[in-house]
Amino acid sequence: MTEVATARRSRLTPEREAELYEAVLDLLREVGYDALTMDAVAARTRSSKATLYRQWGGKAQLVVRALRHNKQHRLDEIDTGSLRGDLHAMATHEDDCSMEQSSALMRGVAMAIHSNPDLRDAFREQFVEPEMGEFRRMVERAVARGEVSADCPALDFMIHMMVGGFATTALLDDRPPTQDFLLSYIDAVVLPALGVRTD
Amino acid sequence: MTEVATARRSRLTPEREAELYEAVLDLLREVGYDALTMDAVAARTRSSKATLYRQWGGKAQLVVRALRHNKQHRLDEIDTGSLRGDLHAMATHEDDCSMEQSSALMRGVAMAIHSNPDLRDAFREQFVEPEMGEFRRMVERAVARGEVSADCPALDFMIHMMVGGFATTALLDDRPPTQDFLLSYIDAVVLPALGVRTD
Repeated sequence: MTEVATARRSRLTPEREAELYEAVLDLLREVGYDALTMDAVAARTRSSKATLYRQWGGKAQLVVRALRHNKQHRLDEIDTGSLRGDLHAMATHEDDCSMEQSSALMRGVAMAIHSNPDLRDAFREQFVEPEMGEFRRMVERAVARGEVSADCPALDFMIHMMVGGFATTALLDDRPPTQDFLLSYIDAVVLPALGVRTD
Repeated sequence: MTEVATARRSRLTPEREAELYEAVLDLLREVGYDALTMDAVAARTRSSKATLYRQWGGKAQLVVRALRHNKQHRLDEIDTGSLRGDLHAMATHEDDCSMEQSSALMRGVAMAIHSNPDLRDAFREQFVEPEMGEFRRMVERAVARGEVSADCPALDFMIHMMVGGFATTALLDDRPPTQDFLLSYIDAVVLPALGVRTD
């Protein structure tokens, strides 16, 4: 099944795929998840609806793929040689303006998740889990280098610490964190909790 | 203005006020913030709409007061003599079932905040800021006792660390954290970041 899907998807050039994802994100910004239709995506991208369903399976999957594509720099491209360097690179890979835009998109999707279980499943499988896997590898490198003790209890809570830093200002102030804020948070909270000295 | 409002509000007995807040929360659970009307609150509580507006000023203020009233135990009633004791008491003051209910309510309001600036303002002024003040006093007691260094950088991020613990499972799994989870998170992340030894 996966092979068939891959074979079919491979008919699209990477450029055409990127163009489709951009159109989906534009529509998402314009009308929000609930009002976004496959008809509108088909019209905007001059595709047939049948093609869209065959390639992605449905609206939830298409939207999540588009969001994931939108993250220009993936965590697994980051490898600076220290955990502090990796976390700082992660916090600064988007400038404050681009962060503002992607934060607004993610917020809209986070809201839609509560009334769309298929979106929640797609988001977890195709977005959260791959991100967590890349994150885990970043942390495992730090353990292998001896920066963090393998039995440090905070290792189980990496994602919670990062969400605390990235999502709190969005939740309380309806705006994303700045890079300066994130760097301070990483140095004051994440690294000390992991027992990494920052001085 | 505040004096007049207080004088007017004092006409309600605490029992009647509690009954009104319960009715507002029931309606909030049933229809959500956007569909909740002052007409429905008036009908449900056999009040006049004029009275509701006079007492609370509007729907946003009434809903936020009701939510705040719903937090049975306030942080400022907690004072165990140690920061670990205080944070653990905070994490366990609601049982898992009650946490589930209040988490669903808060999630609904968090979603409504994005399209209702008056709700965001009321929520910040009447909910977040009082909570943060009580939280600050808890931490200041720990500094005064010598448990935490007054210049510990993590002190600026208490609220972010706590949101990371309380909100991440709600965001990613659409369910609130359990008490066991919160206690582990506090011991693994919050106390080590503050330099408090837990062993």
